[in-house]
Amino acid sequence: MIRILGIDPGSQRTGVGIIDADATGKAVHVHHVALNLLGNEEFSQRLKQLFGELSAIITEFRPDEVAIERVFMAKNPDSALKLGQARGAAICAVVTRNLTVAEYAAKEVKQAVVGGGAADKTQIQHMVGVLLQLPGKLQADAADALAVALTHAHTRATTQRIGIPRTAWRRRR
Amino acid sequence: MIRILGIDPGSQRTGVGIIDADATGKAVHVHHVALNLLGNEEFSQRLKQLFGELSAIITEFRPDEVAIERVFMAKNPDSALKLGQARGAAICAVVTRNLTVAEYAAKEVKQAVVGGGAADKTQIQHMVGVLLQLPGKLQADAADALAVALTHAHTRATTQRIGIPRTAWRRRR
Repeated sequence: MIRILGIDPGSQRTGVGIIDADATGKAVHVHHVALNLLGNEEFSQRLKQLFGELSAIITEFRPDEVAIERVFMAKNPDSALKLGQARGAAICAVVTRNLTVAEYAAKEVKQAVVGGGAADKTQIQHMVGVLLQLPGKLQADAADALAVALTHAHTRATTQRIGIPRTAWRRRR
Repeated sequence: MIRILGIDPGSQRTGVGIIDADATGKAVHVHHVALNLLGNEEFSQRLKQLFGELSAIITEFRPDEVAIERVFMAKNPDSALKLGQARGAAICAVVTRNLTVAEYAAKEVKQAVVGGGAADKTQIQHMVGVLLQLPGKLQADAADALAVALTHAHTRATTQRIGIPRTAWRRRR
């Protein structure tokens, strides 16, 4: 069993999802939360809150591996800059604990969770709930965080099954 | 005397400049360096290096206040995202030490250092050298970091002289 932390960083809300997965990729839900950063007037204080709360979650749940969604293309330079800053704070909270971060494209996440690269947000929310047997509707950012954690569980199971060394596999992507 | 840390964050190189300034804005050079982040293949490792080296500099030099250049507009979403991540890592290194970050627009930095909002990079490099009595040509990112530190020294001196409370002044901007 390994514990996987998935993060969906955002400058307003950051989704956090934690699962335990076995070698076949089968996963059980451990924790999820959407960190609401909007209470801070100053942007730098949002980053402080994000870094601090994520660090506390890492201390409490002790994940073995971390996954994050790769940003394919942001809408515009201004939102890209804000998202980048949130992402930088989240990645710092992870790498300062000597954990590495695996990145997955949105398409890979959709493929792994719903089975098709064209799935929409609502389908992901629904399928994450089904796969992890969570009753009720999941908050969207927390669902995305759990989805990228599930993608990591699925991908590492496949990688191990077909025997590609992880390093070679990473270089190929 | 207060010690000011200026930061010019970048995903390839991050400039760091430290000055000591008195209440009139007069400043002396303490330290400057350009952190070269290009040795890391993985982007997340660059953020780790940036966060780690900046934290070490804060521990060694114990600045009282921190200044950073506000990004007006990045070239494109992709470079904005990269710059944002570097900026997020730099701001985290500062705010986790309970220091606050003052932000200045590029125009304010040019105005404070060269005396005109239309100054180019070379003029800033030159004037920072003259103001801080540094012989030889400064590395560009380190010069920008010293320039934003000088801007902060100059601005806080003006603010104190004309008696606007710092909080009110920040809200007005």
